[in-house]
Amino acid sequence: MKIELENVKPREIESRSFEIITEELGGRALGKDQELIIKRCIHTSADFDYADNLCFSEDAVSKAVEAIKGGACIVTDTQMAKSGINKRALARYGGEVFCFMSDEDVAGAAKKNGTTRATASMEKAAAMDRPLIFAIGNAPTALVRLYELIEEGNLKPELVIGVPVGFVNVVQSKELIMQTDVPYIVARGRKGGSNIAACIVNALLYMIHDNRE
Amino acid sequence: MKIELENVKPREIESRSFEIITEELGGRALGKDQELIIKRCIHTSADFDYADNLCFSEDAVSKAVEAIKGGACIVTDTQMAKSGINKRALARYGGEVFCFMSDEDVAGAAKKNGTTRATASMEKAAAMDRPLIFAIGNAPTALVRLYELIEEGNLKPELVIGVPVGFVNVVQSKELIMQTDVPYIVARGRKGGSNIAACIVNALLYMIHDNRE
Repeated sequence: MKIELENVKPREIESRSFEIITEELGGRALGKDQELIIKRCIHTSADFDYADNLCFSEDAVSKAVEAIKGGACIVTDTQMAKSGINKRALARYGGEVFCFMSDEDVAGAAKKNGTTRATASMEKAAAMDRPLIFAIGNAPTALVRLYELIEEGNLKPELVIGVPVGFVNVVQSKELIMQTDVPYIVARGRKGGSNIAACIVNALLYMIHDNRE
Repeated sequence: MKIELENVKPREIESRSFEIITEELGGRALGKDQELIIKRCIHTSADFDYADNLCFSEDAVSKAVEAIKGGACIVTDTQMAKSGINKRALARYGGEVFCFMSDEDVAGAAKKNGTTRATASMEKAAAMDRPLIFAIGNAPTALVRLYELIEEGNLKPELVIGVPVGFVNVVQSKELIMQTDVPYIVARGRKGGSNIAACIVNALLYMIHDNRE
């Protein structure tokens, strides 16, 4: 079989990809604020389910953008998501990315309390005195603990990106976050991942300043 | 709405997830060697498409396992995939993980030759004098360059994990790799990603020694 490659210059691959995504979405109306995030999630996964499953609280995107401009930090539940976030772009506004999953004190607290390390790492994050955006791409237990901390009045995040992936309590953890009054971007259902979590953070960053260099 | 969480202990979440995946796959027969890899990709993405789209060359899994035991190194095309691979498990057999995407010489070569950095990073890898497994989760241009290097007789990898994701030349790049005579694991079609690339490497590692600690 003869394989024909499409002749697209390196710098044009991304824009050509977005053209194809736009074509395949047909004339479908996406919220103006939400469009770039939805398309970038599809770009990252080649999965058009994200056109249906992404849920945004009111003004979530504009609130998140303001928080980032104000120096908000990102807390993730995987080193992979941390690795995928454009840390240089975030640093322009004073923000940093944290993942406490491999910290010894987190491992110790999880063992002592019989929780996951994800739960313990959310408790460590909640004690930080900085504006926070949570980007949860893996552990529903992280999202459940965030829900509890918010409901107890012990945490008021600028945004929760709730996109853990999987089969045990993933669906429920996302529904819980959507019951709070904090801004959220959630991939309803089972899908998500560290790649999707990082992708949503980067989409927010590129909405402020679209320069990937 | 009242959300009911399933009561599953932290240590049991993964095994419960695999039970659910097995249930939902019904009685479907998966190749014995391939089953764990397919299920782990579904576990990582909550996307059952991987039951259909993963293609394995003959004995790809057993050959890959032997290569890892013999000290093969992993070359990836993203820092995210590198971050997700269990480097401690790999190190047991002498292997390391490399990603050259951020290297200055790679950026320079790409600029000079008008290629992507992914292409240039494959050329850098091909010059290494170690047994190599390529885990490509992002750039079809990396996979196309691997195809060329293999066909030119300048590279003989132990395995190519071909799971780039996207819309431009992604489908074609995977078909090219499946035309070579090197062992491959490929996610046919548009889907894949750094998470899937890392997940397949980890699945191979856990087939040798299933100890996540």
